[in-house]
Amino acid sequence: MHDKTVLIFTPHPDDEVFGVGGTIALLNQNHNKVVVAIYTNDDKGSQDPEMTRERLAEIRKHEEEESEAALGTPKENIHWLGYEDGMLEYAPQPHLVEQATEIIRRVRPNVLLSIDPGEWYVRWHKTDHRMAAMNTIDAVRAAEFALYFPNQRLEMGLKPYRVPEMYFFYATEQEANYSVVIDEVMDRKVKAATAQVSQFSPAEDHYRPDWEPKDLQETEAHLRGLQPRKDGHYVEKFRYATEFNQK
Amino acid sequence: MHDKTVLIFTPHPDDEVFGVGGTIALLNQNHNKVVVAIYTNDDKGSQDPEMTRERLAEIRKHEEEESEAALGTPKENIHWLGYEDGMLEYAPQPHLVEQATEIIRRVRPNVLLSIDPGEWYVRWHKTDHRMAAMNTIDAVRAAEFALYFPNQRLEMGLKPYRVPEMYFFYATEQEANYSVVIDEVMDRKVKAATAQVSQFSPAEDHYRPDWEPKDLQETEAHLRGLQPRKDGHYVEKFRYATEFNQK
Amino acid sequence: MHDKTVLIFTPHPDDEVFGVGGTIALLNQNHNKVVVAIYTNDDKGSQDPEMTRERLAEIRKHEEEESEAALGTPKENIHWLGYEDGMLEYAPQPHLVEQATEIIRRVRPNVLLSIDPGEWYVRWHKTDHRMAAMNTIDAVRAAEFALYFPNQRLEMGLKPYRVPEMYFFYATEQEANYSVVIDEVMDRKVKAATAQVSQFSPAEDHYRPDWEPKDLQETEAHLRGLQPRKDGHYVEKFRYATEFNQK
Amino acid sequence: MHDKTVLIFTPHPDDEVFGVGGTIALLNQNHNKVVVAIYTNDDKGSQDPEMTRERLAEIRKHEEEESEAALGTPKENIHWLGYEDGMLEYAPQPHLVEQATEIIRRVRPNVLLSIDPGEWYVRWHKTDHRMAAMNTIDAVRAAEFALYFPNQRLEMGLKPYRVPEMYFFYATEQEANYSVVIDEVMDRKVKAATAQVSQFSPAEDHYRPDWEPKDLQETEAHLRGLQPRKDGHYVEKFRYATEFNQK
Amino acid sequence: MHDKTVLIFTPHPDDEVFGVGGTIALLNQNHNKVVVAIYTNDDKGSQDPEMTRERLAEIRKHEEEESEAALGTPKENIHWLGYEDGMLEYAPQPHLVEQATEIIRRVRPNVLLSIDPGEWYVRWHKTDHRMAAMNTIDAVRAAEFALYFPNQRLEMGLKPYRVPEMYFFYATEQEANYSVVIDEVMDRKVKAATAQVSQFSPAEDHYRPDWEPKDLQETEAHLRGLQPRKDGHYVEKFRYATEFNQK
Amino acid sequence: MHDKTVLIFTPHPDDEVFGVGGTIALLNQNHNKVVVAIYTNDDKGSQDPEMTRERLAEIRKHEEEESEAALGTPKENIHWLGYEDGMLEYAPQPHLVEQATEIIRRVRPNVLLSIDPGEWYVRWHKTDHRMAAMNTIDAVRAAEFALYFPNQRLEMGLKPYRVPEMYFFYATEQEANYSVVIDEVMDRKVKAATAQVSQFSPAEDHYRPDWEPKDLQETEAHLRGLQPRKDGHYVEKFRYATEFNQK
Repeated sequence: MHDKTVLIFTPHPDDEVFGVGGTIALLNQNHNKVVVAIYTNDDKGSQDPEMTRERLAEIRKHEEEESEAALGTPKENIHWLGYEDGMLEYAPQPHLVEQATEIIRRVRPNVLLSIDPGEWYVRWHKTDHRMAAMNTIDAVRAAEFALYFPNQRLEMGLKPYRVPEMYFFYATEQEANYSVVIDEVMDRKVKAATAQVSQFSPAEDHYRPDWEPKDLQETEAHLRGLQPRKDGHYVEKFRYATEFNQK
Repeated sequence: MHDKTVLIFTPHPDDEVFGVGGTIALLNQNHNKVVVAIYTNDDKGSQDPEMTRERLAEIRKHEEEESEAALGTPKENIHWLGYEDGMLEYAPQPHLVEQATEIIRRVRPNVLLSIDPGEWYVRWHKTDHRMAAMNTIDAVRAAEFALYFPNQRLEMGLKPYRVPEMYFFYATEQEANYSVVIDEVMDRKVKAATAQVSQFSPAEDHYRPDWEPKDLQETEAHLRGLQPRKDGHYVEKFRYATEFNQK
Repeated sequence: MHDKTVLIFTPHPDDEVFGVGGTIALLNQNHNKVVVAIYTNDDKGSQDPEMTRERLAEIRKHEEEESEAALGTPKENIHWLGYEDGMLEYAPQPHLVEQATEIIRRVRPNVLLSIDPGEWYVRWHKTDHRMAAMNTIDAVRAAEFALYFPNQRLEMGLKPYRVPEMYFFYATEQEANYSVVIDEVMDRKVKAATAQVSQFSPAEDHYRPDWEPKDLQETEAHLRGLQPRKDGHYVEKFRYATEFNQK
Repeated sequence: MHDKTVLIFTPHPDDEVFGVGGTIALLNQNHNKVVVAIYTNDDKGSQDPEMTRERLAEIRKHEEEESEAALGTPKENIHWLGYEDGMLEYAPQPHLVEQATEIIRRVRPNVLLSIDPGEWYVRWHKTDHRMAAMNTIDAVRAAEFALYFPNQRLEMGLKPYRVPEMYFFYATEQEANYSVVIDEVMDRKVKAATAQVSQFSPAEDHYRPDWEPKDLQETEAHLRGLQPRKDGHYVEKFRYATEFNQK
Repeated sequence: MHDKTVLIFTPHPDDEVFGVGGTIALLNQNHNKVVVAIYTNDDKGSQDPEMTRERLAEIRKHEEEESEAALGTPKENIHWLGYEDGMLEYAPQPHLVEQATEIIRRVRPNVLLSIDPGEWYVRWHKTDHRMAAMNTIDAVRAAEFALYFPNQRLEMGLKPYRVPEMYFFYATEQEANYSVVIDEVMDRKVKAATAQVSQFSPAEDHYRPDWEPKDLQETEAHLRGLQPRKDGHYVEKFRYATEFNQK
Repeated sequence: MHDKTVLIFTPHPDDEVFGVGGTIALLNQNHNKVVVAIYTNDDKGSQDPEMTRERLAEIRKHEEEESEAALGTPKENIHWLGYEDGMLEYAPQPHLVEQATEIIRRVRPNVLLSIDPGEWYVRWHKTDHRMAAMNTIDAVRAAEFALYFPNQRLEMGLKPYRVPEMYFFYATEQEANYSVVIDEVMDRKVKAATAQVSQFSPAEDHYRPDWEPKDLQETEAHLRGLQPRKDGHYVEKFRYATEFNQK
């Protein structure tokens, strides 16, 4: 795939790195335009007793920009919706759908990547994941019809848009039906993941912006170990769909 | 089944036609009373750039009445709740449960048909389907106990009512456990479906109230092709239940 | 297990008795501290036309205390959140998560028991069960991080707490992965269950605080018949987990 | 005024009796059609420790019908919206406006009476009064324009309607600009008020459905004493308006 | 006043023209930068039975741009928040405050104009006016402190901003404490007002985009007659404040 | 007044000090029990760019305890509801009323002090003040009737309670009808006010926990200058009421 536009929705600024970082690196390498829309600012996930929400949000923003840079995504392609971590479910509705719809109509992606709501079942227990998965597909539907949120056309000139293809990440084993081999960019994926320093020990427990070489090495090995493989290759798995389950 | 009362809840004015139109035709033919409760006014699903919500709602209402007439349901048995298409999830709660409860207590059906919430899992991704499925079973439960919405008794004289049998349509293959052979009314089902002109090309893209004969023929053939069969017969499949999953 | 603290979340004041009453009896017998947090006051589930919500809530409270006493749990270990039966889904959010988080941080259990949200899928159709299952795991997550509901530390001195182990009851057959043999306390479980007089015929239809000996005998036999067995033993089945499904 | 239709909105089933009972009696006497829309079921205002919400709502309904009968209004002209006492502010919005709009469009009154929102300032502290006052004028505005709640036309055939005249009761001294002399119906107003037995001592503290003659006499005298007078006549005072304050 | 930035919040696209159109014309004439933020799209206020919301919103947008052009405000200085007419009160909160806060922090006005919430009392009955008045002053307060909506700094680089001066329009006679003589721009104000063709008869009842010369003349005369005067001059009156009533 | 219980509701931890600090000092001096219920944690009101919400909430809590200690109120009589500063209006309702009702029923005050909702009109523009004023009087009403929040009786043994007397602070000049001479405790009031270091320059702009002697002196003089006087005495003014405006 070349010269296409790919839009990725992610609940937190790291889910898309862990889930589809390799694929992002490949897409950027092949001159596609990758746009990342992040629902939350991830301002709660630290065990450091000195940490505050404002400061953690700043750290997470910086880390995410580093991370995406390692995958080749320029900073200006990252769009923050800015909701509080763990509180996406209580975001004002249908405003949240309206926001995601606006992004889709503006970016007009050839391909959309998102966290998998499940083919036949609603899957998510973790609150932000639950909401991000459902909200994104609701927005995919709304984006297609001019009569949803018609002010977007009137006030911003945005026309309806039908997303032709979707790949869902964090799919279950049974439902995943598409794999991307990421061997050649595995190093960059690991680098991107470890750029999120605050999400790993020891920085999770007591923040520091960098790694002890030994800790880094261990974490890198751990991440490689976690990466699914197929026929000896590192892969990222997806559920591919051209429309969501209506029936 | 004869001389019984059947209540059908449907998210949009076409789901019950596509899902159980044949069964409705048979029920009416056998002198049962069929009542249809429709959650939304379906005022968004058009690609016609000239279409407006007010006009589409009018068209959809007219089409639905034509459709149900083809199946033998009189216009006065259609009850519109009138919520905006795609926005059922944001309808005021628990008011929406209260409304469905009122309908159940008023109609007092021998059998209730509704979109399947799933036997063991919550199934629906499409927002209105999700809400219609869950809301209806919540109302089935509430209808049974006098202490839910007691004003309905006080102000409208409505007594509690326990729904004895339920058939859920749009069930999954694995969970469907009951089939109705609809061969003898298949023509009427197709006629009912094609009465919803605005939901098919070309009227979906540029509204017109009628069909070119050629388009109609193609659509009819397409619909026949989609209809599930079993042992050479056209069937509609259901999940039958006498109570919903509490545990 | 001895001298540990066990916290149980239950949607209604009977779900934990039916689901894990034997386990509770064993835990109390072995000198563990059992704390029960009950989401609703169960003030709707009666068919008695003379019953009112205020009176039913009082009856249910008394019955629950009797029931838990039969299992060895002292009255002061029962914590009522007091939400209306059937309306938990409309409780103010994120306040409900905040309340459950406070309980977890205060009790600091070695083990938490709750109704199963499902391993891979969201399971519940019954509205209060749905909400209780999801809300409890959201609270487990929030409890761990100081930045969720920081006022709990500031105003009540409550520190973050990570729940090490969870057992979910009302699990599906496929997902249950742990069984507790309850033969030796089966009598006490039955006694606890029948202490909830108002939930069985004839008191459900016309309230009376006690049993006819014959009705009691029949109900006891019925309850024994319902209790799952494994290899000839009465068991209670659980899904055991050390963290919830994030991915 | 003769042969006109008058629509009265009242927060509780007694405010319209205390506020405009004399005027209602005169209107009925002069062959006008009086319709009363009551927002709440008044199910909380008792000091009787044995009282329950369900029972109080029943008592209040009966008393209100007695009361209005004394003023000449037939039972079928009383419309109950049925909201919980003290909770009108938390009724689902904009559904509450939609309901009041429907009533206005259906009744199409020549004159509307309601609790005064205040000419220049928002007046009400008491929660149901606040909401009833504001909601009614919002509905007056919405009723006039077809594009508010267009489904009312589509599904119920209701056309927009502009209320020509409004009289607001419970007006302040400074803003009241219209008085109705009620001398000739003062006896009936007192009778109507005392029909609301449960709202006065001793029935407020310990319910009984009737009066001791002595208590009744005292209460009647008390009510006469409270009734405002002007130039020696009993009057009811209003703020008259043909449109509400837009600027 | 010269070379300053003035930010105007208005509930509907005409309130600012009727209320402060002359002042806007003078400000633009004196090389100030005028920015207009409009809460609603005004999509309901027509008596034309053929009108739809989508079409009316388009008409109103065009008229408003014509209107502001007549006063010297360029189209790109008009910011639409796009809420439905009559429904501002049900906009998601605190998101609405957040949006107004963002506009203030972005525009950083020397002077802010808004609809008057009242000096000592809450004034507005008309629902959108009520909400626009309160929401704007809440946003003025929030804009000043970095800890309100800190993501605006993090994600958009917006710093806190303290509004130094405020002039409130639609003030009451008693509270207005500042007048602007608008004689020299009165013609332009009238022209701006009559550019809102759809808000006057006959276009309000049956839409047409232009005026009969005779109707226009009458409307112009009517508008001149309504304009307040002081000492023989046309004036616009304000309540001036440097902070809002905190106590 | 001696040996009475006085309950004070305040929106932020300083409003009660500025508004009624002298009265509190006198009440404590006369052996009354003073209980202070504070709606918000005041975590936004700082201009210090390094300040975070968590830290400011901690500072404000400490300052408030110092402040009340200077007036003689022990720390354990301060009850924090803990809502976010500036967001009280978006607290879950009717839960907020329920909480205030619980406090009233638990404390059972002889006298209640609160921010004045206004005698005849709704007064407050500032969002937390608006909500605190209205919510408290709604709770006063609810506390009186057993049928409001009946679970409080069932689960916590709390009985209904009728507040006999109320004094509202921050009253307007026209409506204030009661004054307390505070000459003898004026020094303690000033000391209490200046204990809220973070609310004054220079600590408001750049936090420090203490005062430069010169700044302190100036601030003390400023506060004395602001204190209302009557007949040469420092006074605090109230609107006294035995019930709120129902009509």
